Amino acid sequence: MNEPIESTIPSLPEAGFVVIFGGSGDLAKRKLLPALARLRTEGLLPKEFAILSVGRSPLTDETFRSRAGRASQAILENLHYCQADYTPEGARVVDARMKEIAAERGLPLNALFYLSVPPDTFQPIIASLSEAGLVKEHCNGRGWSRVIIEKPFGRDLASARKLNADILPHLTEHQIYRIDHYLGKEGVQNLLVFRFANPIFEPIWSARHIDNIQITAAETLGVEGRGGYYETAGVLRDMIQNHLMQVLCLTCMEPPASLSPDDVRNEKVKVLKALRPLVLSGEDSDVVRGQYGPGRVEEQEVPGYRDEPDVPETSTTETFAALRCHIDNFRWAGVPIYLRSGKRMGHKGTQITINFKEGAKILFNALPGVVPPRNRIIFHIQPEEGILLELGTKRPGQSIRIERTAMDFAYREAFEHDSPEAYERLLLDAWRGDATLFVRSDEAELSWKYLQPVIEKWSTTSGKSKIPLYPAGTDGPEAAEGLLARDGREWVDFVQST
Amino acid sequence: MNEPIESTIPSLPEAGFVVIFGGSGDLAKRKLLPALARLRTEGLLPKEFAILSVGRSPLTDETFRSRAGRASQAILENLHYCQADYTPEGARVVDARMKEIAAERGLPLNALFYLSVPPDTFQPIIASLSEAGLVKEHCNGRGWSRVIIEKPFGRDLASARKLNADILPHLTEHQIYRIDHYLGKEGVQNLLVFRFANPIFEPIWSARHIDNIQITAAETLGVEGRGGYYETAGVLRDMIQNHLMQVLCLTCMEPPASLSPDDVRNEKVKVLKALRPLVLSGEDSDVVRGQYGPGRVEEQEVPGYRDEPDVPETSTTETFAALRCHIDNFRWAGVPIYLRSGKRMGHKGTQITINFKEGAKILFNALPGVVPPRNRIIFHIQPEEGILLELGTKRPGQSIRIERTAMDFAYREAFEHDSPEAYERLLLDAWRGDATLFVRSDEAELSWKYLQPVIEKWSTTSGKSKIPLYPAGTDGPEAAEGLLARDGREWVDFVQST
Repeated sequence: MNEPIESTIPSLPEAGFVVIFGGSGDLAKRKLLPALARLRTEGLLPKEFAILSVGRSPLTDETFRSRAGRASQAILENLHYCQADYTPEGARVVDARMKEIAAERGLPLNALFYLSVPPDTFQPIIASLSEAGLVKEHCNGRGWSRVIIEKPFGRDLASARKLNADILPHLTEHQIYRIDHYLGKEGVQNLLVFRFANPIFEPIWSARHIDNIQITAAETLGVEGRGGYYETAGVLRDMIQNHLMQVLCLTCMEPPASLSPDDVRNEKVKVLKALRPLVLSGEDSDVVRGQYGPGRVEEQEVPGYRDEPDVPETSTTETFAALRCHIDNFRWAGVPIYLRSGKRMGHKGTQITINFKEGAKILFNALPGVVPPRNRIIFHIQPEEGILLELGTKRPGQSIRIERTAMDFAYREAFEHDSPEAYERLLLDAWRGDATLFVRSDEAELSWKYLQPVIEKWSTTSGKSKIPLYPAGTDGPEAAEGLLARDGREWVDFVQST
Repeated sequence: MNEPIESTIPSLPEAGFVVIFGGSGDLAKRKLLPALARLRTEGLLPKEFAILSVGRSPLTDETFRSRAGRASQAILENLHYCQADYTPEGARVVDARMKEIAAERGLPLNALFYLSVPPDTFQPIIASLSEAGLVKEHCNGRGWSRVIIEKPFGRDLASARKLNADILPHLTEHQIYRIDHYLGKEGVQNLLVFRFANPIFEPIWSARHIDNIQITAAETLGVEGRGGYYETAGVLRDMIQNHLMQVLCLTCMEPPASLSPDDVRNEKVKVLKALRPLVLSGEDSDVVRGQYGPGRVEEQEVPGYRDEPDVPETSTTETFAALRCHIDNFRWAGVPIYLRSGKRMGHKGTQITINFKEGAKILFNALPGVVPPRNRIIFHIQPEEGILLELGTKRPGQSIRIERTAMDFAYREAFEHDSPEAYERLLLDAWRGDATLFVRSDEAELSWKYLQPVIEKWSTTSGKSKIPLYPAGTDGPEAAEGLLARDGREWVDFVQST
């Protein structure tokens, strides 16, 4: 079935440096270095490159290499280490080390800086790099210079704006790569291919044919010992402001003028700008939050959120949120887009469901007793990637019985190997200078701006009684059902691709 | 996945008789009686009924019952036999026997006559039934009276018209059930459910989105000792005039005003009336024929058609035909519908392929090297029933590679049990008085009228050199490829549902 119809040969990135701040940390060891190693194994990296890990511990290249896990073997020879702090002086140490390695290896001074560090150090590091002249491109023998910033990019509208304001004097927008690892997932990338490379879907991708869209990202895990961090976040910041809003944009955006990074991001920005302000209270409220109490998950008793380490017993941090969004443009007028995400839910997985309108009550759908099946397209993003198309089919037999059946496409079955990790794609793209899958400053700010009233409202209520609890292992508080029930709708079950 | 969304309870047929002319023949034993037995087992027949087999041999009920196969056990008690010929006197014998059984069993005199006999006896039997008063409804203690006529219904336009003219003085149209067993197949019945119960397909079901439609019915078998019969038929009469034209109508017809038999058949008739006359020769010819020569089928050497028993060595009977049809209405303007059917082909199966237009060369489809995948919907009618939707998907990996992948729906996987035999559905429908899946006189005539010029043209050329031969085990003569190649198209491969 999978005859390759074409292949565009990806261009190799240019020789140069990946400089990882926080390079001796957990993310680097678990994700970044293994991703670079796989890219190398697949022949997608340039012949010459160096990975310079910057940290505060005094390590030699040899010690650092010996600590890199097995998954990083393929790039062992390319690994270097440099002890430096986040001051301009530290940046100059990095600069000197880069020049040394460049001379040894005959490398040009192209640099992809990866900030795998706490958000409060983004600004000082960038300012230091700037002061040391490391991010000024094509100057003093330097090539290009790019900076990848890990999430969270701000914790509300003001802090996101401040962060942008703090770094934009030092970097131009095209140098900044704000990472959202959801955008590196195959299932998310395929959304645009599905929509725009298949001519049968665009004609039905609008309010004329679609009743509602649901985006669910559910976890069965709790905060897993990270209660201290989670108290400063909550699911709105941790999942919805970034991942779910990005998925919403890709699902609903107009076809872009081209696939260039800015044309694609312009369309996402148009969606964000067209979002109707959320109603925060009363009968028409668009927002629901909840916090998990004790319960059973996967056959095990688990504690409630307030019993987790580092969580105060009066915490009102939301571990679940559901929103009803509206995009006020011609394509989506009247189509609610329901988002929800939570921890300690009854199921695990991220799925996007396109619920088409009910068939008109004519012909088969008008037969006594027939409930017209709704067409649905379900995109599974994780854990398994796949697409499901639900349709009504005549049940074999002597009468007209229409049943909901599914046509199923599973990546795992269709393609021999597993999908690459999101970080592989994102690192490679940034290295190649393709910012399509990264978040532009205006996207980040507009998403915060949309959610800011919710953040404010939820932060002003405190005390145990103020946030609805849901038992761990369920699909969130009752109000989340009510959010749809009020519209005569319900959440689509979690359907796992085969 | 298969949650039953609804069920319309089929009404039970009324108590009465099924009277099978040719009831001791092969079709009755292999198909009709087992189909009735299964219907009974499924609780779809009335409590009281009798099946009266009419034949020329002198048999008792007991002997007849003892000859019925195991597959007919469930109706053994209901079987009766009656020796009679096709004269009015014979019909009176049948009448007497029916009244006798009716008295014994307390049955009303409702009668479903099944003419499982050679076509030249249709007229005499019907005339005799008429003369004996057996087909006059609701008169002299009789109830309803219906007649099922097996194919072929004529062998050209004139004979079909004559047959209609011969029987219509005796029967009204609503009493006549011309059988086309393709219409009883689940996959064919589901065509309308697919189209009209799923709101996402109607918007793309037109020339605006569809490039061409292909209907293929391929057999690997040869004439299997029936060369004598086949010499009087050919694939145009045997497969295309009836089965493929019916499938074409169901695939392309407008939504009917209702599901009533006449509303559905009115729409089929509209398609037949809108067919553009076929071009029979020259560069723009719409027709191709062929005859199989010796070759290899399923690893076995097989003889050519002219070497089959009872086939003259100068035969020009077509065992393969391909047509390019056009429906000149708004929905299908410019969309060719290619039909082909043949014996001794390289594959086996009936499939309908909806080939959507190529995606515009924009976005992903405009990337260098990308051949936009075409969306296709393939309906498998036999041997396995299923539906396939082909779409372009991003191949997991670092570059944009779009591959043709398939979403698959297989009846066998979705529903526990096998589909019922076509004859079950058709017998039950006729018994219930539902003529939707039977061919009306105008449909039969219009289909013959459309093909009559081809029949005439092909019958006037004779001699070995006049018909292209194709080796057994291939997909027909080269000209069949040329029919599409001329339009810049090609036949879709046989794709088997999983």
